[in-house]
Amino acid sequence: MSRLLSRRLPLRALLHARPAPTTRTYASTSPVSQFNWEDPLASKNLLTEEELAISETAERYCQEQLLPRVLQAYRDEHYDPKILEEMGELGLLGATIDGYGCAGVSTVAGALITRAVERVDSGYRSSMSVQSSLAMGAIHDFGSVEQKEKYLPEMAKGKLIGAFGLTEPNHGSDPGSMEAVAREHPQKKGYYLLTGSKTWITNSPIADLLVVWAKLQTTGKIRGFLVDRKQCPAGTLETPAIKNKTGLRASITGMIHLEDCPVLKENMFPEVEGLKGPFTCLNSARYGIALGVMGALEDCIDRARTYALERKQFKGNPLAKYQLIQKKLADAATDAAYGTLAAIQVGRLKDQGKATPEMISMIKRQNCDRALHNSRVLQEIFGGNAVSDEYMVGRHVANLYVTQTYEGQSDIHSLILGRAITGVQAFV
Amino acid sequence: MSRLLSRRLPLRALLHARPAPTTRTYASTSPVSQFNWEDPLASKNLLTEEELAISETAERYCQEQLLPRVLQAYRDEHYDPKILEEMGELGLLGATIDGYGCAGVSTVAGALITRAVERVDSGYRSSMSVQSSLAMGAIHDFGSVEQKEKYLPEMAKGKLIGAFGLTEPNHGSDPGSMEAVAREHPQKKGYYLLTGSKTWITNSPIADLLVVWAKLQTTGKIRGFLVDRKQCPAGTLETPAIKNKTGLRASITGMIHLEDCPVLKENMFPEVEGLKGPFTCLNSARYGIALGVMGALEDCIDRARTYALERKQFKGNPLAKYQLIQKKLADAATDAAYGTLAAIQVGRLKDQGKATPEMISMIKRQNCDRALHNSRVLQEIFGGNAVSDEYMVGRHVANLYVTQTYEGQSDIHSLILGRAITGVQAFV
Amino acid sequence: MSRLLSRRLPLRALLHARPAPTTRTYASTSPVSQFNWEDPLASKNLLTEEELAISETAERYCQEQLLPRVLQAYRDEHYDPKILEEMGELGLLGATIDGYGCAGVSTVAGALITRAVERVDSGYRSSMSVQSSLAMGAIHDFGSVEQKEKYLPEMAKGKLIGAFGLTEPNHGSDPGSMEAVAREHPQKKGYYLLTGSKTWITNSPIADLLVVWAKLQTTGKIRGFLVDRKQCPAGTLETPAIKNKTGLRASITGMIHLEDCPVLKENMFPEVEGLKGPFTCLNSARYGIALGVMGALEDCIDRARTYALERKQFKGNPLAKYQLIQKKLADAATDAAYGTLAAIQVGRLKDQGKATPEMISMIKRQNCDRALHNSRVLQEIFGGNAVSDEYMVGRHVANLYVTQTYEGQSDIHSLILGRAITGVQAFV
Amino acid sequence: MSRLLSRRLPLRALLHARPAPTTRTYASTSPVSQFNWEDPLASKNLLTEEELAISETAERYCQEQLLPRVLQAYRDEHYDPKILEEMGELGLLGATIDGYGCAGVSTVAGALITRAVERVDSGYRSSMSVQSSLAMGAIHDFGSVEQKEKYLPEMAKGKLIGAFGLTEPNHGSDPGSMEAVAREHPQKKGYYLLTGSKTWITNSPIADLLVVWAKLQTTGKIRGFLVDRKQCPAGTLETPAIKNKTGLRASITGMIHLEDCPVLKENMFPEVEGLKGPFTCLNSARYGIALGVMGALEDCIDRARTYALERKQFKGNPLAKYQLIQKKLADAATDAAYGTLAAIQVGRLKDQGKATPEMISMIKRQNCDRALHNSRVLQEIFGGNAVSDEYMVGRHVANLYVTQTYEGQSDIHSLILGRAITGVQAFV
Repeated sequence: MSRLLSRRLPLRALLHARPAPTTRTYASTSPVSQFNWEDPLASKNLLTEEELAISETAERYCQEQLLPRVLQAYRDEHYDPKILEEMGELGLLGATIDGYGCAGVSTVAGALITRAVERVDSGYRSSMSVQSSLAMGAIHDFGSVEQKEKYLPEMAKGKLIGAFGLTEPNHGSDPGSMEAVAREHPQKKGYYLLTGSKTWITNSPIADLLVVWAKLQTTGKIRGFLVDRKQCPAGTLETPAIKNKTGLRASITGMIHLEDCPVLKENMFPEVEGLKGPFTCLNSARYGIALGVMGALEDCIDRARTYALERKQFKGNPLAKYQLIQKKLADAATDAAYGTLAAIQVGRLKDQGKATPEMISMIKRQNCDRALHNSRVLQEIFGGNAVSDEYMVGRHVANLYVTQTYEGQSDIHSLILGRAITGVQAFV
Repeated sequence: MSRLLSRRLPLRALLHARPAPTTRTYASTSPVSQFNWEDPLASKNLLTEEELAISETAERYCQEQLLPRVLQAYRDEHYDPKILEEMGELGLLGATIDGYGCAGVSTVAGALITRAVERVDSGYRSSMSVQSSLAMGAIHDFGSVEQKEKYLPEMAKGKLIGAFGLTEPNHGSDPGSMEAVAREHPQKKGYYLLTGSKTWITNSPIADLLVVWAKLQTTGKIRGFLVDRKQCPAGTLETPAIKNKTGLRASITGMIHLEDCPVLKENMFPEVEGLKGPFTCLNSARYGIALGVMGALEDCIDRARTYALERKQFKGNPLAKYQLIQKKLADAATDAAYGTLAAIQVGRLKDQGKATPEMISMIKRQNCDRALHNSRVLQEIFGGNAVSDEYMVGRHVANLYVTQTYEGQSDIHSLILGRAITGVQAFV
Repeated sequence: MSRLLSRRLPLRALLHARPAPTTRTYASTSPVSQFNWEDPLASKNLLTEEELAISETAERYCQEQLLPRVLQAYRDEHYDPKILEEMGELGLLGATIDGYGCAGVSTVAGALITRAVERVDSGYRSSMSVQSSLAMGAIHDFGSVEQKEKYLPEMAKGKLIGAFGLTEPNHGSDPGSMEAVAREHPQKKGYYLLTGSKTWITNSPIADLLVVWAKLQTTGKIRGFLVDRKQCPAGTLETPAIKNKTGLRASITGMIHLEDCPVLKENMFPEVEGLKGPFTCLNSARYGIALGVMGALEDCIDRARTYALERKQFKGNPLAKYQLIQKKLADAATDAAYGTLAAIQVGRLKDQGKATPEMISMIKRQNCDRALHNSRVLQEIFGGNAVSDEYMVGRHVANLYVTQTYEGQSDIHSLILGRAITGVQAFV
Repeated sequence: MSRLLSRRLPLRALLHARPAPTTRTYASTSPVSQFNWEDPLASKNLLTEEELAISETAERYCQEQLLPRVLQAYRDEHYDPKILEEMGELGLLGATIDGYGCAGVSTVAGALITRAVERVDSGYRSSMSVQSSLAMGAIHDFGSVEQKEKYLPEMAKGKLIGAFGLTEPNHGSDPGSMEAVAREHPQKKGYYLLTGSKTWITNSPIADLLVVWAKLQTTGKIRGFLVDRKQCPAGTLETPAIKNKTGLRASITGMIHLEDCPVLKENMFPEVEGLKGPFTCLNSARYGIALGVMGALEDCIDRARTYALERKQFKGNPLAKYQLIQKKLADAATDAAYGTLAAIQVGRLKDQGKATPEMISMIKRQNCDRALHNSRVLQEIFGGNAVSDEYMVGRHVANLYVTQTYEGQSDIHSLILGRAITGVQAFV
């Protein structure tokens, strides 16, 4: 049994108590001999009892605690950092990490958490992914024992917020051309000076600890640095928020400007060099996105189905009776079911050491593309009413566009796959 | 020469002066023997000199006066009613109406104006369409001479704002089932009492004059009423705004609640009965949308092309050099060119009395669908940057979704076309 | 170990000998830590050793024995009945049936066989599916012990060819309206007289035993009859071939005309009534199609990839270097990988008694749709050369169109899914 | 009045007599105030009386003379050269050429002829296009007066069959890399020796006169040569047919093998050098294809509509009553209407000297793509019955695939357009 279940966390209590039934029966254990539109190909059949329990806990938290506040947060472009603390209390942060106060659950279980969060909002999921997969993941995979022990436990509790600085304003899809640089401090021994700008950095304005990738001047190689905000002298670190976003408005996004910011040498990841470091982290984050976006799609299906059953037009027939409506629902349910199976498969392979980055490119690309496409088609069921944000689906549509573009824009993943299939690269 | 050009309006001055070159060269008269990506199939070749001049005037106004304020208006969900006055001063309102202070231009010229406005924002165009095609159009087509003389000249100046109340909360695609009713005033002779609710009514919160369709209780037939706000006793007319929209945020949308609102019998359209009235108006408005949305699409093409040429990735190549990018641009330019030709053709037929409602269903459906689809594909060119509203394309995407749903949701038009093609109806 | 592996069949020898390596390495056991474009999401990881061995045997037979003759067979619209005998010798017919000389392998293993056959040609697979899933399946599921013992062993050997008569000329998607009827023989006791017509019946012109569904006159209920050709008096059974087909030309298709054909009462299935009988059989056949068409798609990917690597245009670059080409390959590989996983999942559920017909509708519809779509897109890679039938892909495209239409046309399955999702039917 | 109408041709008689009404009423002059599904946007309104008459003549010939023989011809992969003679008698060959026995009609009129032919079969149209646009067009545009006078009149009569040899086996989309070469005859003065191979050459096996493009050895520049079959010594010219095609089987396609074939120097086009020559001819042919394929699509619409009205499923409803069917018809009719308008527009521009090659790329690409796409979707309406070639639509589908690939494969035209839009080329 994983620590997520064994350690003394509210999760445990929730799991044993399970008092009142919630409206969402997603993870209920109904017999699958009947077709279940919420899980058309019975993917639950592939999950362990523990994974089902984790999923249910996460779903319950998200539906009960996150859903009620998302509409206003999205309108106001506001992110409440307390959310990470709440998630931390439930053991949802860095959940696949073993040790350092983390739950040590399976890769699939970790992604079931992202799915639960993204069923509410991709922005909330983004914030959690950055904390878990990118910031904590980087430290876990590449940090020294001291770095891990110092930062991971607090991050697992959501009391220390992380960010991950890779993308630069002029190098979105091509991080190898980054301009950020770390040079030896000319005066202070044991320090580097970091200079450079990162953009579209989730959590950056509220982050306590920023994992920043920069080229070490002496070698020209990319290295990872832990920039601890409270250690940065005034004027050396700025993390302005990017406002007026057209999507992911319930998460906070910003830039990172470093200007001769002194960073202790022991805050550099000891060994990893080049793009291997950030790409490993992105790989984990992308995996979480692949199952995560299925949550957003499933929520769109749920809401569109309900609307189609309740909304009557032409002689009192519900929209659900019209063939053009049924086809939209059938297509979306199919893509949700297929995408879920593919993500579970890759998760299992990942735990067996058999998942390759191209597999993750494939499921990240396809699941984001299909989630976006189907959410848009489902939105049509709402007709003009979708313009009201209270129907939620417009928010998912706007969010899912962003998921298609970040951590590898869809076309970039197409070319990664094309290269893997043909052995020939077509980037330039 | 039409009145738009002959009467003493700033338009005239603009036409003759044409001083400083603007950045947009859309309506410039370059020889078409070269391929012009802004007008790939040389649709300008089909326009008269007068139409070209009207188009250029409208484009200039929109680019110079509307574009600078749209971003903030959209953010704030604010519509400045002064815009209608500005448009009125230029003769852009009700422009296809002959007389009553209107310009009397061709149907195509009228649509070139909507295209110019929608190149900036579909919300601005919606507001203008409601004023011109729906409110003024209804009065012109079905009003008594007294009604026309009383209202049209002020509306043409943009000093009297109109709205058009057809859609009800429970009857989006099926207006024949409307519940709004007009009954004889039990006490006051010469008055009807109107009761009912309309929703998704552009301009309603700021409208002075609301064209409201309701069933006359005595006959059960749908009739049109001019509800003059200043004549409505307190508590009989409410027009609350619908806020937190996911699109068309630069226009104002609201509801109309009428509760025993007394309306003078001479404010009823004298003859038109049934859905013929509202459908005639919608037909004109839909026509304007068909060419209008091409403006929004063209703006997306323009912005995406510029971005693709300026943004460099992978060894300094502009995005424009990548095949996957070029295909997106080629597809969008093709749909814009085709949609423009189709709209011009139907406009010509309309002026010849040969356009049928099904033709307008066809071009409204197809042009909205393709504008929406291509704007989304073009958005991909911006990658994550599209999340910043300053790139404008996300706003077009959100707006175009709405155009696809209003004045006949796309699927409804499919079924109208299907019925016209097969002779069999498939609505129920 | 299943009988397919244990009994003394050439299969066994093949499995142990495995002499010369074939060009196709599909089922080779390379480590999956590298991305394998032939199995991008490592679906082999989900298969048992036995299933892998069965797959390899089937693939080998198909590539070595079927592939060399398909081109001419397709051109000549000729089906060689010897093929069924060959398949019978290898234990490939009715392979999921336990007993009666059949191999008793898993549902997934059975479908791996169909995939291997369909990698060569959907027509060959159709012929095998009819024999295995429809004819043998019907007898196995609904026949009396005597019927099973009499027919199944010979059918398993491919020496007795079966057909399945359900579809009628006027009732393609709506078999419940069938007109075929069985009435008591007015003179001969113990006999029914069957009258009716069936169309698009694979194998009918060469079938020895035809499973025919007809309404029993006395009850009006649909029942199944085993029409044994050699027992039919002259003039009571005609099975003319349908020629000049635009697809599936390597299989033979025909009609069944029965005119007062006397059939022994003990040749009626003893119990099953209504559409349950044929639908159960179709369900199994559809399952086989769902994985089968992935074989055809994978062959298209393989051939398109090879062509793209070998064909050079513009300064000697292989087509494989072009982004537009790479996207086609990436999309197709993704759909093949996803469809394969979904089919394996449903196969496992089927063996656990947890698969519902709607699940099979989902994977049959989606996999056929995607196989067809992608095969068409891949065909574009060949440019004009695809017009030569020697590139094979045009044949797959033509075949896959048919798979999309038979055993439930795609739209019909959409409505089955729509009904399952909404609880509302939209057929009429 | 053009010569097509004024000279003494059977066409004239047909035009005046117009005896029995045919079933097809395509070009009838019904008032367009009603929606006409055969011409949804009233494109006929844009045609002159003469063009309407030419269209009607061509349609009548094609429906009466070509349609009855196409099914068998396609099955047998047989092309009857008498067809060109029949077309010649009606003045349909090289119709846009002024003089030399040609009709001298407008560009649009010429394309209306191709549309009429392609309504029956794209193969028949291909054969005619090669004769008219490629072979006669090349001679007319680039030939000396002697060449024109010698060949054009006989070609216009269809008594001398032409072919056009540009594409080589290894250079499909990149003709600039051609390997065919013309060198000075080492012995015979006044002769070149031509060596090289061309493939996918429509009409080549039956052609009397082959326009062959080859590099002149002395300059390295591409030049055009008239290879007169009857002047070629045995063994220097071979034109084997390519058999077993998957499309365009009613036309004959072959290769051209030249081995030291002596060609008179006066048979070289006097001036044109480089790709300008062949590209000019292709431009004209492509234009004809753009409107031509609309004929094939319209035939698919017509046949699918009829089938949908006649075929009944589920309680006796015609397929035409189902929403999913109606959408297919609506989409196809829209694309046919839009494509027709675009082609007419470019035809008018061409006659005004304002059409650019990119415009023709746009309409060739889009109309072929949409014709192919919609024909496939319409094929779905026929369900399994489409497998019978007697429903005709499968033949159109197979043919239209080829039209998408020849004279510029769709993706190549995308890149031509992309280059025109961005100014950046993405071919390599």
